[in-house]
Amino acid sequence: MTAPSITLTTDFGVSDHFVGAMKGVITTIAPEARIHDITHQVSRFDRLGGALTVAQFYRFWPARTIHVVVVDPGVGGARRPLLVSAGSHYFIAPDNGVLSLVFDREEEIHAWHITAEHYFLQPVSRTFHGRDIFAPAAAWLARSSQPESFGPEVGDYERFSLPRPDIAKDRIGGVILRADHFGNLLTNLRPEDAPGLLAGAPFRLSVGSAKITRLVTTFGEGAPDEPCLLVGSSGYFEICVNRSSAAQATAAGSGTPLTIELG
Amino acid sequence: MTAPSITLTTDFGVSDHFVGAMKGVITTIAPEARIHDITHQVSRFDRLGGALTVAQFYRFWPARTIHVVVVDPGVGGARRPLLVSAGSHYFIAPDNGVLSLVFDREEEIHAWHITAEHYFLQPVSRTFHGRDIFAPAAAWLARSSQPESFGPEVGDYERFSLPRPDIAKDRIGGVILRADHFGNLLTNLRPEDAPGLLAGAPFRLSVGSAKITRLVTTFGEGAPDEPCLLVGSSGYFEICVNRSSAAQATAAGSGTPLTIELG
Amino acid sequence: MTAPSITLTTDFGVSDHFVGAMKGVITTIAPEARIHDITHQVSRFDRLGGALTVAQFYRFWPARTIHVVVVDPGVGGARRPLLVSAGSHYFIAPDNGVLSLVFDREEEIHAWHITAEHYFLQPVSRTFHGRDIFAPAAAWLARSSQPESFGPEVGDYERFSLPRPDIAKDRIGGVILRADHFGNLLTNLRPEDAPGLLAGAPFRLSVGSAKITRLVTTFGEGAPDEPCLLVGSSGYFEICVNRSSAAQATAAGSGTPLTIELG
Repeated sequence: MTAPSITLTTDFGVSDHFVGAMKGVITTIAPEARIHDITHQVSRFDRLGGALTVAQFYRFWPARTIHVVVVDPGVGGARRPLLVSAGSHYFIAPDNGVLSLVFDREEEIHAWHITAEHYFLQPVSRTFHGRDIFAPAAAWLARSSQPESFGPEVGDYERFSLPRPDIAKDRIGGVILRADHFGNLLTNLRPEDAPGLLAGAPFRLSVGSAKITRLVTTFGEGAPDEPCLLVGSSGYFEICVNRSSAAQATAAGSGTPLTIELG
Repeated sequence: MTAPSITLTTDFGVSDHFVGAMKGVITTIAPEARIHDITHQVSRFDRLGGALTVAQFYRFWPARTIHVVVVDPGVGGARRPLLVSAGSHYFIAPDNGVLSLVFDREEEIHAWHITAEHYFLQPVSRTFHGRDIFAPAAAWLARSSQPESFGPEVGDYERFSLPRPDIAKDRIGGVILRADHFGNLLTNLRPEDAPGLLAGAPFRLSVGSAKITRLVTTFGEGAPDEPCLLVGSSGYFEICVNRSSAAQATAAGSGTPLTIELG
Repeated sequence: MTAPSITLTTDFGVSDHFVGAMKGVITTIAPEARIHDITHQVSRFDRLGGALTVAQFYRFWPARTIHVVVVDPGVGGARRPLLVSAGSHYFIAPDNGVLSLVFDREEEIHAWHITAEHYFLQPVSRTFHGRDIFAPAAAWLARSSQPESFGPEVGDYERFSLPRPDIAKDRIGGVILRADHFGNLLTNLRPEDAPGLLAGAPFRLSVGSAKITRLVTTFGEGAPDEPCLLVGSSGYFEICVNRSSAAQATAAGSGTPLTIELG
């Protein structure tokens, strides 16, 4: 039987010892586990950014993979550490909404408040639960596969919603959720929010300093420096520029509003 | 038998979900495969940068390692996905020249156009072939070791050449290919291009704002702030400064011309 | 028996081929070894930074883990490559003090000068011992577990001390050792250096542009923009700001002096 996979998604950066300490704790408890870095560059304290990242990778992993997600500005405070079973996936994360989009997408959800202190690294610090609680919980889960042994099941876990688009007959209002490494801008609009667009209806999108009137299907179709609209691999509309950064070309970024005028 | 290794070299950055999605796809298909990050910080869309990186690590890996290289500005367009067998190594990459230096260095080359859609993640997006084509192809190759099952063999794959030095009797013209993390400047000149240099012949190298007259064998030999010439671990001449950045000291970088006057 | 773990801590950055070449060398020699990235973003040539990083992760790893630490401004010069057994851990590093804090913390220390050239990658470059000496030494150690086969034992290895606090009756002088990814400032002061503080004695800490009078136990206790003092997960006092950067708020960083007035 193949060793279980544990993935790591944090805002810890890659310059310090944080990630290395977590990997050591996991390896000590569950030496057979395979540890995979997803990213440690979620923006500091950015629960929405963490949620968007998780939503876009977790379903590509095998069943029973354990996804550790530590974006945890409230570390050491009242927020609970959670173990979540969602569909066929496990998550270990603080109860601060960072799993919200997983909760949106999966039907079968169970959440346990991790209270079983015998699983923790002792003494538990007040400032590094990634090392002292989340990493050991993931490793012990990899060994036991018994989530109910970690604490009481809870139903009142925190979740937030993505900002919803404002859809009128001839006009759709949306927002940029984030810019990726290439400067592509992820919006909160899906094809079903504007069914005419994919059918070729004319439109005029305003975002930041740009007006966009062209829908493309690949990054390479746009002219140089021309911001275009595209359905991204995320399933949401994205704004892109051929071999360049849409974030720079439009002076837009996370939180920038956008409007689409139809017809 | 040891599990096969799959290495990842991309320009995807480390802030997003991209790499995490690829690793999940690979782990789902080939759970025993070992996945190794090389770098995800090739400069965006920089096929030459990707080619230089690949050229400097691949031969240190075991035979039959599968090297996935995704620097792919033309994703979703006409460029073909390739599976390449070169010497004892496998490569999965877009057909855009990013493997050019592998083609230069290996004698036994076979390339297949990856067309076997049953290996792809469905539906195939137009914007993220790393996840939908390259990662699953690598994973299925790790399982089967049958490259010919991925599509027709092709011979007209794209390759580009490094800029060649301009060698005259008393004067050599070259160019900076790239700056590394330390600010060391990789040139396109090899020792055999200037045989007198290693024998101690006097020279005067001009690059950016600097004149260089000293050849060293280790970074530590130079005086503080003194740019020096050295044969790097790449086998090419490099320009370096002891415990500091030659790129900053010389105001030179990728594409900067250089001349060496001999004697 | 579980495959041995080899961890990598360097100042090589993540943009180049360096780390990828080292991983290939290790995988070729010891295909069963598990390779784990700690960080490759130690500040360039910063032996103290490397020492601080190592000190904060190594003890969380299993016994007999092999920690490769390459912060090596003197590569190719007279400094020796070392194999160190400290407590239950192995280290492979240049003899330049980067293991100083390990030497401080462990009682049972043995160090060997790595001279057994049959373990090296040939030809050995003068500029990339990470690839040619340190990586193969780690891999061969993972296979053999015979440190004494690598060369003669030595006792005169280099070590430096952390700057010691200046402790008077009503006043303590210290220094910032480093800023982490969140901008938290690590000091060289431990709770035992100022026993009154944890007991609630009033204090006034001056560092950079800030005066600090509040001791907290979690990051979340401070008011917005209020720099606070806290005992970090490192066991040392740290200066932090709730959901923000203490480095920015105080205009302090590595090397900035601080004073605490008591009472």
